[in-house]
Amino acid sequence: MSKAFNRNITLRSIDFAKWYTNVIKESDICDYGDRSGSVKGTIIFRPYGYALWENCQQELNFQFKKLGVQNVMFPLLINEKTFALEKEHIKGFAPECAIVTQVGDKKIQEPLIIRPTSEVLFSCHFQKIISSYKNLPLLYNQWVSVVRWEKTTRPFLRNTEFLWQEGHTAHSQEKEAIDFSLKIIRLYAEFVEKFLAIKVILGKKTAHERFAGALETYTIETMMQDGQALQTGTSHYFGQKFANIFDIKFSNVKNEQEFVFQTSWGMSSRIIGALIMAHSDDLGLVLPATIAPIKISILNLVPKDQEVSSFVKKIADILIKNFNITIDETNKSVSYKKSEAQIKGIPLVIEVGQKELAAQEIKITLRHNLQSSFVSTKNEDKLLATINELLEKNNKELYENSQNNFAEQLKEVVDFKDYQNLVKEHKGYFIAPFCGSYQCEQEIKTLTNTTSRCVPLDEYRPSSACFKCQTQNSAWTYFARSY
Amino acid sequence: MSKAFNRNITLRSIDFAKWYTNVIKESDICDYGDRSGSVKGTIIFRPYGYALWENCQQELNFQFKKLGVQNVMFPLLINEKTFALEKEHIKGFAPECAIVTQVGDKKIQEPLIIRPTSEVLFSCHFQKIISSYKNLPLLYNQWVSVVRWEKTTRPFLRNTEFLWQEGHTAHSQEKEAIDFSLKIIRLYAEFVEKFLAIKVILGKKTAHERFAGALETYTIETMMQDGQALQTGTSHYFGQKFANIFDIKFSNVKNEQEFVFQTSWGMSSRIIGALIMAHSDDLGLVLPATIAPIKISILNLVPKDQEVSSFVKKIADILIKNFNITIDETNKSVSYKKSEAQIKGIPLVIEVGQKELAAQEIKITLRHNLQSSFVSTKNEDKLLATINELLEKNNKELYENSQNNFAEQLKEVVDFKDYQNLVKEHKGYFIAPFCGSYQCEQEIKTLTNTTSRCVPLDEYRPSSACFKCQTQNSAWTYFARSY
Repeated sequence: MSKAFNRNITLRSIDFAKWYTNVIKESDICDYGDRSGSVKGTIIFRPYGYALWENCQQELNFQFKKLGVQNVMFPLLINEKTFALEKEHIKGFAPECAIVTQVGDKKIQEPLIIRPTSEVLFSCHFQKIISSYKNLPLLYNQWVSVVRWEKTTRPFLRNTEFLWQEGHTAHSQEKEAIDFSLKIIRLYAEFVEKFLAIKVILGKKTAHERFAGALETYTIETMMQDGQALQTGTSHYFGQKFANIFDIKFSNVKNEQEFVFQTSWGMSSRIIGALIMAHSDDLGLVLPATIAPIKISILNLVPKDQEVSSFVKKIADILIKNFNITIDETNKSVSYKKSEAQIKGIPLVIEVGQKELAAQEIKITLRHNLQSSFVSTKNEDKLLATINELLEKNNKELYENSQNNFAEQLKEVVDFKDYQNLVKEHKGYFIAPFCGSYQCEQEIKTLTNTTSRCVPLDEYRPSSACFKCQTQNSAWTYFARSY
Repeated sequence: MSKAFNRNITLRSIDFAKWYTNVIKESDICDYGDRSGSVKGTIIFRPYGYALWENCQQELNFQFKKLGVQNVMFPLLINEKTFALEKEHIKGFAPECAIVTQVGDKKIQEPLIIRPTSEVLFSCHFQKIISSYKNLPLLYNQWVSVVRWEKTTRPFLRNTEFLWQEGHTAHSQEKEAIDFSLKIIRLYAEFVEKFLAIKVILGKKTAHERFAGALETYTIETMMQDGQALQTGTSHYFGQKFANIFDIKFSNVKNEQEFVFQTSWGMSSRIIGALIMAHSDDLGLVLPATIAPIKISILNLVPKDQEVSSFVKKIADILIKNFNITIDETNKSVSYKKSEAQIKGIPLVIEVGQKELAAQEIKITLRHNLQSSFVSTKNEDKLLATINELLEKNNKELYENSQNNFAEQLKEVVDFKDYQNLVKEHKGYFIAPFCGSYQCEQEIKTLTNTTSRCVPLDEYRPSSACFKCQTQNSAWTYFARSY
């Protein structure tokens, strides 16, 4: 491959954090900072970045719809008084809530909170509209942004405002509600593994790490190239907790009043951060073909040559029916053109010059492994089949890389002393038998700067003595440093 | 048609405003009010209401994309200082801005405004990313909600928070920018006429009614069944006004620095209000088939009869490939079922009972004119063709009704005394030669409670003496009471 031109990307091995911010800026995914006019901690999704989010939306909406979920839209602002009704919930969110106290130059009577999440609003509405088991289940979802004031922010990973979907459901049966929250976390897992090509650990959070107000929090956890953990989706089961407080009752088949069982679940624009940190390299973005806004870029190497241009047009006409493509016919140098396509992570780059024209073939390079091959253009069906195979190969290999990366960077520990030493040098996940107690969890965090990620839903190994306090029957639990 | 059951809708002739709120509540389009937990002036889009908005989004996104517009996403919050840079703009919006002054229990250093519109944010970003004419034009759009604190609110028509799209573009040429803002207003007009089946007046606002900061505001105006005007979309041309203040420069072909020319344009969830007030009747919603979330409802009149149920299934299997349909096989009474479909405005209702089974035909009723016909089911292609024709008829006739309603309720005036008398009894639009001066406009508003709607882009008649002050060469201008 040619050298990169016009690229301003720090090597991962030198500074992973800097590499990350370089990649998202150089690839025109987002903009932020004082000069762009955006408030500290917020970002502007530029067209290429927003297209990634729209592709996720489209796929998730399709999957949600198959489960019978309906989209709705709730207000941005919540009365402080309403928000404060569920004590545990408010305790978790209050310190990071942005509060409107003023309209124009007038103080308003009651402060309003910009939603950090919408459980209370859905609960109020549910109370009003649910009357009979015949109305249930209600399976709702909304695509919105939420505001949570974070002290340290990083684009996509932690923003004061982020985009997400939040699902909220109400059920007449406990089992149905639990099953639904599990169904969603499995849907998330499949989405991240198939659509984003990232290996996922599916599990539940320890009591300490649960969502404020939840009885159970299911989670999917991923590992970035630097070995750190990133939580990419959660699904919460609330039991009748909100129903009790907001008085959400229905009459059951026997015409008796009962409280509903609720769930909520969300996936945010953080997955774009995961996507970048899981796959990209020192040359720029690497995107799985499934989510890439542009699947193929055709580089015309001799734009002045009319015959080459006609050949490019012929290729483009074949591909455009099946793929989102772009054609680069500028007069920039070949290496510059390649470099641009690399920075943007376009999965498949086609080069067409005089040599290719003469041989009636094209040079195809896959972005993720930088491997090239020559493919004949004589048979249209064969050409399309080859390109489809290559794009599938891209997804498959990216997922395998992610899977291997995880396997290689997972360490088993049974002794906390060992853990304290290992954690100093090993970057990656650990798995250890853990009692799940609040006290152990706090001490582990303080002593090692790692947190429990989850107890895997598929048991890793029969339970054993806690690596910290030796309590028997402790479930094997993942630990890691996390974003 | 049978009588309506379970319907709680005031007649339009008795109280149009009450009729409107009854219709949106009974059809499960939205929820609001204290008990639903929503802050005063905001609404909850329930699944049926949000589906209407999603259908608009889909159609508009498709049309925008054809013009090369790209979707982006900018932050919700704007620094007060940044917002204040364009004086005319801030003057227009400041009194209705919701302001965040606090995070948790801590006061923040600099107050933040929840976007009432995003010109300043786009301008800051443009300043940063535009350098050469080669970058231009930038054609951006975002789908978000905005907050504008209104004293009197009405669901969809005027809310403190509403959904909209806001487009923002930057161009190297003045003419190109003006042409683009005109292109958008024509796109809006076509969307409202074809997709929402509402007659539109396309024009430009008088200086007095322009958007804060705009050099020209193009608008589309519609008339509701009560004769009142509703502005349903606007497109603004800013010239170099924002560019001057935010220093948005590019180097032109001669390598000289120039300021860009900008536009912005928006259409909001208000169009759902327009949709309802333009077409619906005393039985509930009436929806054009183009936008209806459910196009066809099949009522099984004898759900216990297995042969009827099989016949229903056969019909459904034919239709589901082409249309969004729903099947009502509940044990509710026939009139109750019809009533439910009517309230929801489902364009086409099919009844299937024993009589229909025996004759191998179905009874089809169109919601908008309540006319029924029997159609044979023996030939599948013919059946589909007939249903397509009926759905097209629904759109065509709704548009014609809207057009006729407008024509019948338009009055020409040339004398202000006449106008003052006419305005007391005539509900509808007026057209009069008008000088467009601020003083005349203010007086007309005070004396008649009507406002100028627009000067039509297609000249109505050669200009004449102003009906208020007799200034010569005044353009014929539409006036009306407005929402």
